Amino acid sequence: MSNTKAYAAQTATSKMAPLNIQRRDLRPDDVSIEILYCGVCHSDIHQAENDWGNSMYPVVPGHEIIGRVTAIGPQVTKYKEGDYVGVGCMVDSCCSCSSCKTGLEQYCDNGMVGTYNGKDLHDGTLTFGGYSERIVVREDFVLSIPEALDIKSAAPLLCAGITTYSPLKHYGVKAGDKVGVLGMGGLGHMGVKYAKALGAEVTVFTRSASKVNEAKQQGADHVIISTDDDQMAAASLQFDFLLDTIPVAHDFNPYLNCLKVDGVHIVVGLITGIEPPLWGVNLISKRRVLAGSMIGGIAETQEMLDFSAEHGISCEVEMLDIQHINEAYERMKKGDVKYRFVIDMESLKKA
Amino acid sequence: MSNTKAYAAQTATSKMAPLNIQRRDLRPDDVSIEILYCGVCHSDIHQAENDWGNSMYPVVPGHEIIGRVTAIGPQVTKYKEGDYVGVGCMVDSCCSCSSCKTGLEQYCDNGMVGTYNGKDLHDGTLTFGGYSERIVVREDFVLSIPEALDIKSAAPLLCAGITTYSPLKHYGVKAGDKVGVLGMGGLGHMGVKYAKALGAEVTVFTRSASKVNEAKQQGADHVIISTDDDQMAAASLQFDFLLDTIPVAHDFNPYLNCLKVDGVHIVVGLITGIEPPLWGVNLISKRRVLAGSMIGGIAETQEMLDFSAEHGISCEVEMLDIQHINEAYERMKKGDVKYRFVIDMESLKKA
Repeated sequence: MSNTKAYAAQTATSKMAPLNIQRRDLRPDDVSIEILYCGVCHSDIHQAENDWGNSMYPVVPGHEIIGRVTAIGPQVTKYKEGDYVGVGCMVDSCCSCSSCKTGLEQYCDNGMVGTYNGKDLHDGTLTFGGYSERIVVREDFVLSIPEALDIKSAAPLLCAGITTYSPLKHYGVKAGDKVGVLGMGGLGHMGVKYAKALGAEVTVFTRSASKVNEAKQQGADHVIISTDDDQMAAASLQFDFLLDTIPVAHDFNPYLNCLKVDGVHIVVGLITGIEPPLWGVNLISKRRVLAGSMIGGIAETQEMLDFSAEHGISCEVEMLDIQHINEAYERMKKGDVKYRFVIDMESLKKA
Repeated sequence: MSNTKAYAAQTATSKMAPLNIQRRDLRPDDVSIEILYCGVCHSDIHQAENDWGNSMYPVVPGHEIIGRVTAIGPQVTKYKEGDYVGVGCMVDSCCSCSSCKTGLEQYCDNGMVGTYNGKDLHDGTLTFGGYSERIVVREDFVLSIPEALDIKSAAPLLCAGITTYSPLKHYGVKAGDKVGVLGMGGLGHMGVKYAKALGAEVTVFTRSASKVNEAKQQGADHVIISTDDDQMAAASLQFDFLLDTIPVAHDFNPYLNCLKVDGVHIVVGLITGIEPPLWGVNLISKRRVLAGSMIGGIAETQEMLDFSAEHGISCEVEMLDIQHINEAYERMKKGDVKYRFVIDMESLKKA
């Protein structure tokens, strides 16, 4: 076991604060990683503050991890000391169910092991995330970071990137498709980039006229102000896909109306209730589809990283010292970040 | 124009009563059909009583029509006098939009013309349905009734049949798939038959233990009492598809939980709001899909009729004289019919 500096929430109402945690000794298939950068995801706040009612304390958040391999177990073959690697939202799964066998570890029938707030499958200990000096992860759940990627801005690809890339690939978004992106935060701006890279014509839907320019800066071809009835009416039956990254309850009906026959509305941001109610007729009348998607499997996450390197895609980030994590959380609650905070873990050495 | 006996609702609150209507003279591509049988669909009641707020009076319902060709226009090539033919939920569409061109006339961008409560594309007159002696329909929207089908019990195939057949085919239901059917009415019992004929293992979900035997009589392999928490828990993650024929608001969340990863919940019965709210996490956590489907295109409706003939599938019907249509509506509102009323139009001659 190795004593490891970290930042943790000790209760749902306590602030993030320094805490020493233990990292396990390397198992034969483990990789030990010195963490260099860690993105800050909204889930980090939800778990730290127990918004989903399932938090196990202390919570050490962070599942957008980039670091350098410092040691490997004797059976490890894919990584060696010094390699730049990533860890996303999960660090293990059963690897024997039908989902795991088809590369969909995130949907493991027995439950994937979260990078934090999970239970290790071997010893039942609580998993701790990337707000820490180092992490020990089973080789099969470690990603290789392509050389062409900037390791600071690549960190959020491990969650925000794969969350948007995976459904666009799964539903076969291709050149000529019309894709709408709902919400322009950490997920939304990545959705714009991937949809563009896949050849689609991309429209951002936003409530705020002030976001038109920034949406276009991120690559959007068009912007629709969702509160403008005329613009929404003109968008009726125009879209093949909608990528919905809005994390709070919103009316799905006006958006569904923008989909063509067989159009697909993909939900990646909202885990709570769809209110006001979704009307059946909006699905039935044009054979539309409402679908959910959650991150991506390990092989697909590697594919996403390679795709990002090839297409020069990274996340827009604001760098952060970990001492300012509580202020960052407050700003994120107000949507005040373009588009993702990334913690420079060098700062933890001063903690 | 030909004077034609019919039954109509004159207002939202009036009962169905005799009315003389006019049928148009044959256009070059028209077929004139003597109506022999007409199924009674729940939509008939909704339209007669203006439940959807779009009724145009008088409403002559009926879109599950089987009859005999009595005359054809000079350009008609597919039908001749004496042929047994069917007419379903639509009698025309633009035939030039992308939906129509791909055989999805029901999703016509310009709006399909309903068999009743629609507007004729040529002269703007109101369309009148099958509760009448005869109907005049464009050849391309007339179906051929295979000889092997009993024409009484085949009538409801034109709506209840195609509504359930089409999504099962669209989503590729095949041998070995586990299909759940929600609701055991006119649509539900047809869903059981088609899912079985496609080789699926079929489970009926019902609130009522009294329906176990009848569900099995219709071909269901299993029955789950949806109000039994233990049975529902045991069904978690078990199904590839759910065919949801329930026409009133119901909680989708416990059913979604029964779907496997990538499972599809197909809505064909509910056009109003999904309440209580559907939770995003139930889609996201297993990449599940909620989809709508509405009847089927003309070519697919013919395929469904041929498939039904080949597999000996018909609707369970209770025959009705048209003089008893108001009592039938009252019984249908209470779910008191197994499983579809079919009007013997011979009775109209006595009206």
